[in-house]
Amino acid sequence: RIHPAKLIFAGYAFYMALGWAILCLPVSQSVPVVPLDNLFTAVSAVSTTGLVTVDPGTSYTFLGELVILLLIQAGGIGYMTLGSFVMMATAQHLSPLRERLARTAFTLPEDVSVGSFIRTVVIYTLVIELVGACLLYLQFAASGVDNAVWSSIFHSVSAFCTAGFSLNPNSLENFRGDVGVNATISALSILGAMGFLIAWDVWRGLTRRSFALSFTSKVILKLTGAFLLVGAAVIFVSEPGIAALPSGERLLASFFQTMTTTTTVGFNTHPISTLTPAVIVLLFFLMAIGASPSGTGGGLKTTTFAAMIGLVRSTVRRRPEITFFNRVIAPARLQLAMASSAYFVMLMTPAFFLLCLTEPGKDFEALLFEAISAIGTVGLSMGITGSLSDFGKLTVILLMFAGRVGILTFGIALASKDEEAGKREQEDLLV
Amino acid sequence: RIHPAKLIFAGYAFYMALGWAILCLPVSQSVPVVPLDNLFTAVSAVSTTGLVTVDPGTSYTFLGELVILLLIQAGGIGYMTLGSFVMMATAQHLSPLRERLARTAFTLPEDVSVGSFIRTVVIYTLVIELVGACLLYLQFAASGVDNAVWSSIFHSVSAFCTAGFSLNPNSLENFRGDVGVNATISALSILGAMGFLIAWDVWRGLTRRSFALSFTSKVILKLTGAFLLVGAAVIFVSEPGIAALPSGERLLASFFQTMTTTTTVGFNTHPISTLTPAVIVLLFFLMAIGASPSGTGGGLKTTTFAAMIGLVRSTVRRRPEITFFNRVIAPARLQLAMASSAYFVMLMTPAFFLLCLTEPGKDFEALLFEAISAIGTVGLSMGITGSLSDFGKLTVILLMFAGRVGILTFGIALASKDEEAGKREQEDLLV
Ligand SMILES: [K+]
Ligand SMILES: [K+]
Repeated sequence: RIHPAKLIFAGYAFYMALGWAILCLPVSQSVPVVPLDNLFTAVSAVSTTGLVTVDPGTSYTFLGELVILLLIQAGGIGYMTLGSFVMMATAQHLSPLRERLARTAFTLPEDVSVGSFIRTVVIYTLVIELVGACLLYLQFAASGVDNAVWSSIFHSVSAFCTAGFSLNPNSLENFRGDVGVNATISALSILGAMGFLIAWDVWRGLTRRSFALSFTSKVILKLTGAFLLVGAAVIFVSEPGIAALPSGERLLASFFQTMTTTTTVGFNTHPISTLTPAVIVLLFFLMAIGASPSGTGGGLKTTTFAAMIGLVRSTVRRRPEITFFNRVIAPARLQLAMASSAYFVMLMTPAFFLLCLTEPGKDFEALLFEAISAIGTVGLSMGITGSLSDFGKLTVILLMFAGRVGILTFGIALASKDEEAGKREQEDLLV
Repeated sequence: RIHPAKLIFAGYAFYMALGWAILCLPVSQSVPVVPLDNLFTAVSAVSTTGLVTVDPGTSYTFLGELVILLLIQAGGIGYMTLGSFVMMATAQHLSPLRERLARTAFTLPEDVSVGSFIRTVVIYTLVIELVGACLLYLQFAASGVDNAVWSSIFHSVSAFCTAGFSLNPNSLENFRGDVGVNATISALSILGAMGFLIAWDVWRGLTRRSFALSFTSKVILKLTGAFLLVGAAVIFVSEPGIAALPSGERLLASFFQTMTTTTTVGFNTHPISTLTPAVIVLLFFLMAIGASPSGTGGGLKTTTFAAMIGLVRSTVRRRPEITFFNRVIAPARLQLAMASSAYFVMLMTPAFFLLCLTEPGKDFEALLFEAISAIGTVGLSMGITGSLSDFGKLTVILLMFAGRVGILTFGIALASKDEEAGKREQEDLLV
C-alpha cells in the first residue's frame, strides 16, 4: 500500500512534467527558451512560487501563458485540497485517533463527504478569482494596460493561488501608488493564504446564532493580522527607500511589501534588491514562517510559529504543558511543527551550501534570499534568478518542489519505509 | 525562593561587572581603552567567546591580561560546574522525577557529594591546563615566542576553556603548519568541548571490568568525531585558499578550522575573512550546533542536534517514538532541545535585525557571522568586531551573555514567573 505522501509527491511531479513538456513545444514560445528554463517555469508555476529565469510575458505565447495559468491553478487548488487530504491521511497513520481529530479540525460535519468538501473548495476558488478579475479589469482598463481582460484573469488567479507570476517584467511596480490594485491583489492573496478552513469556519459562524471560531481559525486570524501590522510598521520605519515616498504611498508600499511576503504571493511594487539589509532580515523571517495551513501559500505556516512560541514560553516558564493563547497544544501537533522546522533547516543548509559553491560571483545576501524564497514558495528575488548557473537552477527547482509538496510530506515521501514500534529502551539524553 | 537560573544569570553578570571594573583601572591598560571596550573584553572573557574590539596583547598590561585569564577560567569552569547545577536544579523543578534522572545522567554515585563533584572538575581542569601549558611551552620556546611561559599558560587555559583569546594579534596564524601547536591546542579544546561528564564516564569505564559508556557519552563521542571528520573533509575539498597550501598543511588547516568552529574555541590559523561563502555556510552550521553539554563550549550542543535528527527521522518514518541510535529519547529532553533551538532563532532574528540597522556600511555575511559567533560563544570573526558601532557592540555583548548563560537558562531567568498547571483544555492546532 502506497502512502498518501508518495502519491502527493508523484502527483506534483506529474503536473510539472506535463507542463514542462507543453512549454517545450515551439507553439508555446514567442522566443526560443531552453528546456531547463521551461522546467524552471513549470516547477515555479505548479509550486506557485513565481521565481522566473525568463520573463513569462515576453517569452511565451498566449498558449504558453495559458498553460502557466493552468499549472498555477492546479498547484494552488491542488495544494489546498490535496494538502487537506495529506493532513487527514497522515494523521490517520500517525495515530488511529487522528482521523476524527482532523475531521474535527476541519470542522467537517459527519454528513459532508470528502467529495463535496473538494467541490466547495473549487467553487469558492473560482468565485473569488472571478470577482478579483472583474475588479482588476476595471482598474487595468482604466490604466490602459494591454490586453486588460487576459491580464486581469491572469493576475487574479496568480494572486489567489499566491503564485505571484506577472505578465509585466517589473511585476506590479507600475501600480505602487494605485490603492485599488493594491487592495484587490492584497485581498485575493490574503484570502488564498489564510486558506479554505477559515473561510468555511467564518461562513459557518456567520450563518449560526452563536459566532464561535475554532481555535486554529483564531490563531490564523490573529497571527496573520499581527504579521501584517507589525511587518508594515517595521518596514514603514526602517526602509529609507520607502520612507522617501509621499506618505500615502509610503504606507501603501510598506503594507504591500509585508503582505506579499507573509502571504508568500511574491508580487512586488518596490524593487527588492534596493531594500536595506535590516528589512531583508525581516523578509527572511516572514518568508520562512509563510502563510497558513490548508491555504495556497507556502512556508512553515503561522500555526507552526504559534506552536514554537508556545513551546518556548511554556518551557521557560516551566509550565507543565505547552500552551498558546491559554490552550494546551496536543503533543502530536507540536511534534509535527518542530519536525517541519528542523527539516526546513536540514534542507536549507546543504542547499544553500551548494548554491554558494555553484554561484561563486553572486552576493551572499541575494543567494540566501533566493533559497528561502524558493523553499517558502514566495517568489520574491533580489534579481539573480535569471543569471543562476544550470546547477543553481536545479537546486532552486528542488527547493520550490520541496516547499510546495510540504516539508514533512516531502520527507515522508523520501523516507524509505515505515517502522513499527520495536522493543526500545528509553534513554536519558542530556541536552 | 529564587530560581537557580536567576542565580546563574546574576552570577555571570557579577563576574563580568567585577572584571569590567578592574579592566577600567589605568593600571590594567597599556594604552587607554574606553569603558565600552573594557566591558566588551570582560563579557567576551567570562562568556569564553574571544571576540575582541581591542587587541588584548597590546592594549592591556600583564595585570590586565591576568584578569582576562581569571575571567576566562571563572567562565569556563563556572559554566561547567554551574551549568551542571542548573541542569540538575532545573530538572528538579520541571518534574520531581528529574533530580534522580539528572544524578543518573551525570553518573554520580550516591556517595559522591555535589561538593566533591565540583572539586573533581577543578582538579581535572587544572591538571589538563598544566599539561597543555608545558607542551605549549616546549614549542613556543623553540619558536622564540616572547615571554613563552606566560604565553603558554594563557593559551592553554584559553584553549581548554574554549575561549580562543590570544596574545597574538593574528591568533595562531603563525603556527598554521606547526603540527605540535595544532595538536596541543586541538586536544585541549576538544577535551574542554566534550565536557567533564564524558571524562568521568571514560575514566570510570577504564577502571572497571566491563567498559560501557552512557548513551549521552556515546552520542557526544560519535557526533564530535563525525563533525570533525566531515567538516575537515568538506573544507579540504571546497576551500580554494586552503587548497592552495602544501598538502600536509592543507590537511592541518582544514582540520584546525573545523576543530576551532565545532569546539567553539575560536582560535584561527587561517584568516576567516578570506574563506569562500560555501565554507562560511558550513561554519554557520557548526557554530550554531557548537560543543557538548557540561563542557566549556557554547552553541546549541551536539545532543540537541542528535535530538533534532531523531525527531525528524522518527517523524518522517512515522515511528511511534522519537529515537536516535536506536534508543528512545525522553519527551522532556526533546522538549528542552526543541525549545532551545526555537529560542535561539527568536533571539538571533531581532538581534541580527538590529545589527543590520546599526551597522549600515558592513557586509551582510560578516555581520551574520559576528552574530552567530557571539551567541555560540565561538569568537571567530570576519574582522569587523573592532569597527562595530557602540550600539552594535552592545548587541554583541548581549548575544555573548545569552550564549554563555545558556539559551534556555537565559530565557528562564528573564521569564517573569513560574506557572502552575491551571485548568486548560487541550486544543487541536493544525500545523
Ligand atoms: K509565490
Ligand atoms: K570561544
